[in-house]
Amino acid sequence: MEHPYIPRDLKLPDYVPVSLPQSTILAVYGLASLLVVSLVWLFSGGSRRLNKLDRLLMCWWAFTGLTHIILEGYFAFSPEFYKDKTGFFLAEVWKEYSKGDSRYAGRDTAIVTVEGITSVLEGPASLLAVYAIAKGKAYSYILQFAISLGQLYGTLVYFVAAILDGDNFAMSPFYYYAYYIFANSFWIWIPLLICIRCWKKISLAVQSQSQSQKKSKVR
Amino acid sequence: MEHPYIPRDLKLPDYVPVSLPQSTILAVYGLASLLVVSLVWLFSGGSRRLNKLDRLLMCWWAFTGLTHIILEGYFAFSPEFYKDKTGFFLAEVWKEYSKGDSRYAGRDTAIVTVEGITSVLEGPASLLAVYAIAKGKAYSYILQFAISLGQLYGTLVYFVAAILDGDNFAMSPFYYYAYYIFANSFWIWIPLLICIRCWKKISLAVQSQSQSQKKSKVR
Repeated sequence: MEHPYIPRDLKLPDYVPVSLPQSTILAVYGLASLLVVSLVWLFSGGSRRLNKLDRLLMCWWAFTGLTHIILEGYFAFSPEFYKDKTGFFLAEVWKEYSKGDSRYAGRDTAIVTVEGITSVLEGPASLLAVYAIAKGKAYSYILQFAISLGQLYGTLVYFVAAILDGDNFAMSPFYYYAYYIFANSFWIWIPLLICIRCWKKISLAVQSQSQSQKKSKVR
Repeated sequence: MEHPYIPRDLKLPDYVPVSLPQSTILAVYGLASLLVVSLVWLFSGGSRRLNKLDRLLMCWWAFTGLTHIILEGYFAFSPEFYKDKTGFFLAEVWKEYSKGDSRYAGRDTAIVTVEGITSVLEGPASLLAVYAIAKGKAYSYILQFAISLGQLYGTLVYFVAAILDGDNFAMSPFYYYAYYIFANSFWIWIPLLICIRCWKKISLAVQSQSQSQKKSKVR
């Protein structure tokens, strides 16, 4: 069957069309994410030490970590997802997403590289961040900074590689803006805010430590 | 003229062969780097506050920063360097290096993306790190951590993309191990050591700050 993706000359032998409606795919991902976020919010509410921002960050790290591991992990290690005949949900997700960026169905090297790194390294690290915030670990800020910077680097590679290759991978402006631009934008502005916050927290901690060291030398 | 690179079916119309001998190219890069490192070592020796490790790190950041900006910056923005007839040194460098990795001459998307990010963002940030260490800025550790993590991410993309594309870009095992493996290995183990050191320093500073906050609450 002929595939619907752009560019039209992309070769996808034995392509099987997406079988679930767009609304179903979005609803399953949305509701599953909402469930995860609600559970983390509920359980973290039991701790007195955690303020609302900590709990919000735990929700983000649980959501993004599971997205990296399950959704992006499936993609990275399933080179033939576009041939799936069973209507398997994760294959459906990437068949649908490829409408906004056919480099996924086409198995572009830059995409598979970034998604592999994201799913294998940043996914588990994100779940570690949930734990680190919950337990108030000293490495919590530097860990969150490291993952967020990795996410920013990955998203930058994602967009720069698309521009270098002609930026013509979406079926229509709707898919271009809804999938390629809007969906990915969350992995720009959220990591950016987290990086800025961690940078400030860490710089302050280093500064106060070096000042207290100077004081103890004077004594 | 026919190019010498692997794979043999790589298209490089109007290719002009490398004109400087390998020894000259390596000597110029080596001596220029030695000059930079010596100058930074000498000038940083005037400050009492800087220990030998600080000064060594300043040398590294000056060397890697200038390599990113000049060498990699030239590559990222010179798509036709392999056509250069003038024997221009930076074009010669990349004609020579392409013997170990023809993705440079072939303008592979993942390579150009990573080199672009490295030269534009990590290059200037590395020079900022020289300044930050010299002045003992509080953001010194987190800045060094950020650049090193970026370098590690870039090198990881570099190697993973090569493997996905068949890992067959070197003219011979000599060029494979000397250029592709050995030369790049510096941008794995040095950033890795810096990341580990900064992670520890930062975690300690955060820990001591949170402890002193607890103490002041008890008072």
